[in-house]
Amino acid sequence: MATTSQEKERIARAALARLMEPQDSVGLALVRAVGAVDALGVATGELATGPKLEQEISALLMDEGGPAGWPGLPASLRRWAPRIADLAPERDMATMRRLGGRVIVPGDELWPAQLADLGLQEPLCLWWRGNEQPLPTARQAVALVGSRDSTSYGASVTGDLAYSLAQRGFTVVSGGAYGIDAHAHRGALSGGTANVPTIAVMAGGVDRFYPSGNEELLRAVSNQGAVIAEVPPGSAPTRYRFLQRNRLIAAIASVTVVVEARWRSGALNTAHHAETLGRAVAAVPGSIHSANSAGCHRLLRDGGAICVTDAGEVAELAGAMGETTSDGKESLAAAHDGLCLEDLILLDALPLRSTSSIEKLTVVAGLSPEAVRAGLSRLNVLGLAVSERGTWKRANNA
Amino acid sequence: MATTSQEKERIARAALARLMEPQDSVGLALVRAVGAVDALGVATGELATGPKLEQEISALLMDEGGPAGWPGLPASLRRWAPRIADLAPERDMATMRRLGGRVIVPGDELWPAQLADLGLQEPLCLWWRGNEQPLPTARQAVALVGSRDSTSYGASVTGDLAYSLAQRGFTVVSGGAYGIDAHAHRGALSGGTANVPTIAVMAGGVDRFYPSGNEELLRAVSNQGAVIAEVPPGSAPTRYRFLQRNRLIAAIASVTVVVEARWRSGALNTAHHAETLGRAVAAVPGSIHSANSAGCHRLLRDGGAICVTDAGEVAELAGAMGETTSDGKESLAAAHDGLCLEDLILLDALPLRSTSSIEKLTVVAGLSPEAVRAGLSRLNVLGLAVSERGTWKRANNA
Repeated sequence: MATTSQEKERIARAALARLMEPQDSVGLALVRAVGAVDALGVATGELATGPKLEQEISALLMDEGGPAGWPGLPASLRRWAPRIADLAPERDMATMRRLGGRVIVPGDELWPAQLADLGLQEPLCLWWRGNEQPLPTARQAVALVGSRDSTSYGASVTGDLAYSLAQRGFTVVSGGAYGIDAHAHRGALSGGTANVPTIAVMAGGVDRFYPSGNEELLRAVSNQGAVIAEVPPGSAPTRYRFLQRNRLIAAIASVTVVVEARWRSGALNTAHHAETLGRAVAAVPGSIHSANSAGCHRLLRDGGAICVTDAGEVAELAGAMGETTSDGKESLAAAHDGLCLEDLILLDALPLRSTSSIEKLTVVAGLSPEAVRAGLSRLNVLGLAVSERGTWKRANNA
Repeated sequence: MATTSQEKERIARAALARLMEPQDSVGLALVRAVGAVDALGVATGELATGPKLEQEISALLMDEGGPAGWPGLPASLRRWAPRIADLAPERDMATMRRLGGRVIVPGDELWPAQLADLGLQEPLCLWWRGNEQPLPTARQAVALVGSRDSTSYGASVTGDLAYSLAQRGFTVVSGGAYGIDAHAHRGALSGGTANVPTIAVMAGGVDRFYPSGNEELLRAVSNQGAVIAEVPPGSAPTRYRFLQRNRLIAAIASVTVVVEARWRSGALNTAHHAETLGRAVAAVPGSIHSANSAGCHRLLRDGGAICVTDAGEVAELAGAMGETTSDGKESLAAAHDGLCLEDLILLDALPLRSTSSIEKLTVVAGLSPEAVRAGLSRLNVLGLAVSERGTWKRANNA
């Protein structure tokens, strides 16, 4: 069977993903410079390098605002060398097929186009466990993130938001962890109307549902939605990989909502990625006595985040036009709001139980008799003042 | 006894304050044009008006962004006429002396200079019940405002904020109402270190402590701080006067903090005044399930307000330099925060219980042997990695 160039690209990227940690800038620049197939050749020592390639990589790193000086390709080759013996991309791809999944790479129809916003830091490939169906665009996706040690407040708010967002057709993106992440996935699964109600972006390989306490939940996410990672099967979810993973959550969604987070929290790292990408960052307020909301308040105070209190406000940030915001709160407008100042003064001067003469109203309100008469007729039209035999009182509803 | 010109000005302004409602733009422009003494003459019909005066008032109103057309001075004269019979400024001033108070006017040494920021809307005078002592500058004053129907959360937050701000030497300004206002005054009285720990700005006359349920509290405020109003003794606290009063609260303080407010609330009106004056507006976040925080969240979301969670953050907004913010939260920084990415990867790769060889670490971490050795020595110096007979493990505290 002839292998197409896209398939060769896929196999090479699957191999490189095992060789390199996420966001290995030199490795990613190498791929950008010579393509994944030749990059694998260079990384494994099968293809020679030269000063021209080094210069090209330098230029790419500089373009991305990388360090002015880098140790050169030989240092990277030494870093990659210990893992060459483990390379078996076909085996990894077979593993994904066995798990009911696949590996997708840039250029695939199913590749989420919004990941290109990561520039050089776009992942080499995605290991995807779940049904083969289009993943959401950024506008269709909202990230809900937060602490593992969520409170009952955070749990309830996250569940409500995820359910309502999923009901509106949004895909809820999160990290598959305990706490806020789990409530986000669970709420989205129960409310989902989109093809992919929720996506769990894992820090480790998707062959293992981690943490183990979320195994059932993540299995449900992979059955109805998608469980994805940029690291190959078998990769451990290390702290470094958690931090790198956060940029994918931020990049897939148009809005990152931090529901509950401590003063220092990984969720703030995700928010920072979103901000860097020019995506909207939102935070849910909470009690100032709750340490689990301190990170949210920090985001609000530092100016980067927008305060959100319901799914309508989040949907608005995601650019979903035609959605109503803040469910009818505007309709609470009191009838007094449209009154001019003189009429407001006059309304204040009108007694509620007894009645008052126009002459007396001129004194109490400090208005001329003409102004009182004109104002009373306006208030009367609005149903705020009623007259009884030439004297006036306030209407019951005023 | 000869009456000085400043005393004549005082008497005239005391009289005008009874004739005109707060923020009577035409009346205030008239005072600005001809001085208070002559303005009183015009307002009471003792001095004639003419086209030149009308033009001057028009120009002043236009300068303040007022309406392009106004009905002319005769309309105002008709508005003021019904109250002329009640004028008795000396009696009102005697009432204030009997209450242990006074009337102050612009130009007095005790006049709060920051009220000039109100421009034409600066009050004619202030009726002040309390000890004669310097009122705070804007930088020394913080307004705490909010709903009458406060929750236990709002009560506790307001009390804590007011107490801590007063302890730091700030004057807490509020409106003397039930709920948040009362908690603000009470907290400030118990914590106060300034000459004037708290100021209650009343919508009605200061002869009566309103509402009656706050009588004891307002008496204490007048004993230790100040109870002030721009309307003369005997004036009823009408809705219109409440709205006008709010601009004084906003103008006296450098920061207006909304602690708890419903979606529609008078406190938002105060916040709006503060914003118009270029003063800082802050809001305390709360549960999104609490209707009493919806107004605060609205302020945060609409971008005008800054999120504050403790007195330190409020003090910072008031421009109190040298104050520490957010009490030591920064010190919670984990030891990992300063690590470079490679060392973070390496730390992740280090086992906690067993030990690992350098060769194995190159595979797990994806780093060259040199990088692993250099990284281990850095982590060792930081106390994050320990070696045992040539193999390495993570330190217990890492």
